[in-house]
Amino acid sequence: MKLTILGCYAATPRTITNPTSQVLEIKNRMFLIDCGEGTQVQLRKNKIKFSKINQVFISHLHGDHFFGLIGLISTFSLLGRTTDLHIYGPKGIKEIIILQLRLSNSWTNYGLYFHELESEESEVVFEDDKVLVTTIPLKHRVYTNGFLFQEKVGERKLNMDAVLNHEIESCYYQKIKNGKDIKLDDGRLIANSVLTFDPIEPKSYAFCSDTVFHEDIIPIIENVDILYHESTFLESEVSLANKTLHSTAKEAARIALKANAKQLILGHYSTRYESIDLFKEEAKTIFPEVLLAEDGKTFEL
Amino acid sequence: MKLTILGCYAATPRTITNPTSQVLEIKNRMFLIDCGEGTQVQLRKNKIKFSKINQVFISHLHGDHFFGLIGLISTFSLLGRTTDLHIYGPKGIKEIIILQLRLSNSWTNYGLYFHELESEESEVVFEDDKVLVTTIPLKHRVYTNGFLFQEKVGERKLNMDAVLNHEIESCYYQKIKNGKDIKLDDGRLIANSVLTFDPIEPKSYAFCSDTVFHEDIIPIIENVDILYHESTFLESEVSLANKTLHSTAKEAARIALKANAKQLILGHYSTRYESIDLFKEEAKTIFPEVLLAEDGKTFEL
Repeated sequence: MKLTILGCYAATPRTITNPTSQVLEIKNRMFLIDCGEGTQVQLRKNKIKFSKINQVFISHLHGDHFFGLIGLISTFSLLGRTTDLHIYGPKGIKEIIILQLRLSNSWTNYGLYFHELESEESEVVFEDDKVLVTTIPLKHRVYTNGFLFQEKVGERKLNMDAVLNHEIESCYYQKIKNGKDIKLDDGRLIANSVLTFDPIEPKSYAFCSDTVFHEDIIPIIENVDILYHESTFLESEVSLANKTLHSTAKEAARIALKANAKQLILGHYSTRYESIDLFKEEAKTIFPEVLLAEDGKTFEL
Repeated sequence: MKLTILGCYAATPRTITNPTSQVLEIKNRMFLIDCGEGTQVQLRKNKIKFSKINQVFISHLHGDHFFGLIGLISTFSLLGRTTDLHIYGPKGIKEIIILQLRLSNSWTNYGLYFHELESEESEVVFEDDKVLVTTIPLKHRVYTNGFLFQEKVGERKLNMDAVLNHEIESCYYQKIKNGKDIKLDDGRLIANSVLTFDPIEPKSYAFCSDTVFHEDIIPIIENVDILYHESTFLESEVSLANKTLHSTAKEAARIALKANAKQLILGHYSTRYESIDLFKEEAKTIFPEVLLAEDGKTFEL
């Protein structure tokens, strides 16, 4: 699992900072999360292949989280994309995109599928054999969802020494990986636990931006490996955070602590502060494992 | 009159090139012409004050000419703008912008006025005491206008030697600048031509992008000081230019020649070519005064 931060600042794009967008590589899938203005250029800068993105998740319809989407969709067309693209985002996103494609007479030459969200409850929005994506209803000035990305438990790993020792033929390997016991030709039953190791622990990533401090999300993200939680402000601006339905670094840390997250990544910084190190310092007074998002930075699990 | 090129490349924004946008400073007015994705960052890079832009002219609704507009409008709001903003562009642009403001619940705190264009004939779209802006109907895949910016003829300049020589009081100066003759106390009539010099020659700028080679525009832009004409392709790709309703450098030069333009600026380059110098070389075989647009370049008259 690899997370690339394309942009992690609040409000407007500037010469040196970008609005929210991230790419999550998980089990060979590449998910784009939010898509502020300039995201397609950030993808190029970070050498991420456009063609590998097949799913885009949009948290909410504030400009710093989706104004780059129409440009990306158009560029995909210009580059001759033929693979389907799936957009998950708040109700209304389809109307915005389709209106612009219609007025510019620039329909995509690939399948463009919208999965519009309007539930106030957490729901599964994407699932395949390897990954599950669930919404995390957030509390902001417009309808907003975070997203929880979970790897599914994989196959058990073969203990090759044991397998060879029992002279088991390779045609049984898949069965063993699936957890089955094996009956040998001489009638002996070999327990699966003898022939395999536990599968690699599945990882999880929770993206929570934008939101006020909102404890309702804790049961959904409990025990998550990495929690990205917005921290637009420092605690000195907590009243402004409450008013604008954003969070402080301290509040993000409190959520991480209560949810028993392994690590916390802070982001969505207001540009009013001189150094983002202040966010880390503040959050660490509550929760030890704090990392700072930065445009162009990658995190690997 | 000063022209700043914010972006002059066709199709998609890239790490080193930007889609179409320009700022024209004329008689202390600052007009934004087209607004591709990333324009607000380009404005910052080129240190152009956001607050000085009160009019935006959009040629057509292809993304590389307007996808940056919604972001700019939103940023103006976030920066606390209170001055009215006027948008001139094809019918439909209002619906695109308003839909996004509505869905993001982010109405502007300043007056936002749309002047939607749908005429196939050239028409005046902006006029004040100093400047006149007229559409130049172009021929492209969607409804498209270029824009002709003309300074109005200014006041006559006082010939201070002659004025003092005739002992004319300063309360008459404005009359004289307006072209009136003056009757002295002794009854003599002094002709205005004795008391003044001709006003500074008014300048004009024509922006023509995107369009196929289209001679109908020649009467509208005749004798223009500077013609910006798109040259997406070189003559080697003339059939592609015809098919996509774009122009070649040679065709742009032919228009400049026939319109008796003083100078030609080329732009809207396809990124398929190794060097934009090729565009200049080609155009110069037809028309001598060729300049190349480049992102961040300024032209002063």
